[in-house]
Amino acid sequence: MSKETTKAALLEAGRRIFLERGYNASGIEAILQTTGVPKGSFYHYFQSKEDFGLQVIDTFSRAYFADLDVYLADESRGPLERLRRFFESRIERLESQECRNGCLIGKLSQEMADQSETFRTRLLEVFDGWVDRVANCLEQARQLGEIPAHLDPRELAEFWLDGWQGALLRAKIRRDTAPLRSFLKLVRGDVLHV
Amino acid sequence: MSKETTKAALLEAGRRIFLERGYNASGIEAILQTTGVPKGSFYHYFQSKEDFGLQVIDTFSRAYFADLDVYLADESRGPLERLRRFFESRIERLESQECRNGCLIGKLSQEMADQSETFRTRLLEVFDGWVDRVANCLEQARQLGEIPAHLDPRELAEFWLDGWQGALLRAKIRRDTAPLRSFLKLVRGDVLHV
Repeated sequence: MSKETTKAALLEAGRRIFLERGYNASGIEAILQTTGVPKGSFYHYFQSKEDFGLQVIDTFSRAYFADLDVYLADESRGPLERLRRFFESRIERLESQECRNGCLIGKLSQEMADQSETFRTRLLEVFDGWVDRVANCLEQARQLGEIPAHLDPRELAEFWLDGWQGALLRAKIRRDTAPLRSFLKLVRGDVLHV
Repeated sequence: MSKETTKAALLEAGRRIFLERGYNASGIEAILQTTGVPKGSFYHYFQSKEDFGLQVIDTFSRAYFADLDVYLADESRGPLERLRRFFESRIERLESQECRNGCLIGKLSQEMADQSETFRTRLLEVFDGWVDRVANCLEQARQLGEIPAHLDPRELAEFWLDGWQGALLRAKIRRDTAPLRSFLKLVRGDVLHV
């Protein structure tokens, strides 16, 4: 494997193993075994397990935001329709994985927020980046009159993403995406009136 | 300590330690140390760590539901006001603990749903018990005309509790109860129009 490929393979293995077992229960050994990368090589790319964990979060959130940004930049559709299409695409992705995995950021936040100030700060940045993007799109929707003018786009984005995060957790516990579909239906019909 | 007190002390230590470290990272040793209970005594009350974990969940959820039921049975107030008062009381409780702890059920669900069918099933029962109670109260609110008649009490209860769960997580990451207050404001103002 090339250097870039090796590093990417380690980060992808980390994402999958953290999502399944969490951060603390995931040994470096398991990640090396999955990828066939020798230990020395791991420490060539990452200073420590913590450095690796933070880079897994960064890599995941960069990919997530890149995906979200593609939907939000689609000017052939109105802002609310862009959001709807993005969240529907996430439901389809979960369904293709039998809906067992849930959200890496939610999982690591539950596990690490009390244990590491470094992780907590990094995860908060991810939440904030998510809220910023959705709030910006909702602001556009408000300016176009797609949603009631009295709604504050940032508050609404936080409300939306909190509901989505909770629905993701219930979907994981139920092994069923119904909570996510129900959430989208209510937030659109009863909050946004669209 | 009496037998009942010993068992209760072990369960309470389990609740606190699981909330801080999760289930897998909490050794029985740490629970014994905190409580000063000898190992043999632990296995007198609990067949295994799993049995202990499930009893921690049951004890926590019984106490949580008992608290919720007191608020919901308060017939001197309307159904929506009972719900509001309950959720406000949970915010105050979190504030008194510096808002670091979040939700035991949310934490164990993130950690255990993929790892143990026994835990997943038990945690799902807790979620269902929570939804049942809130849905029942919202049904009363609907019958009294407190909320729009087209809203389905059960869907609405799920929506409410998913949003609350997500707001709890963001409160934990931010170390700030603002997400919970903001959630209650929006769910009441923009979904229920009260």
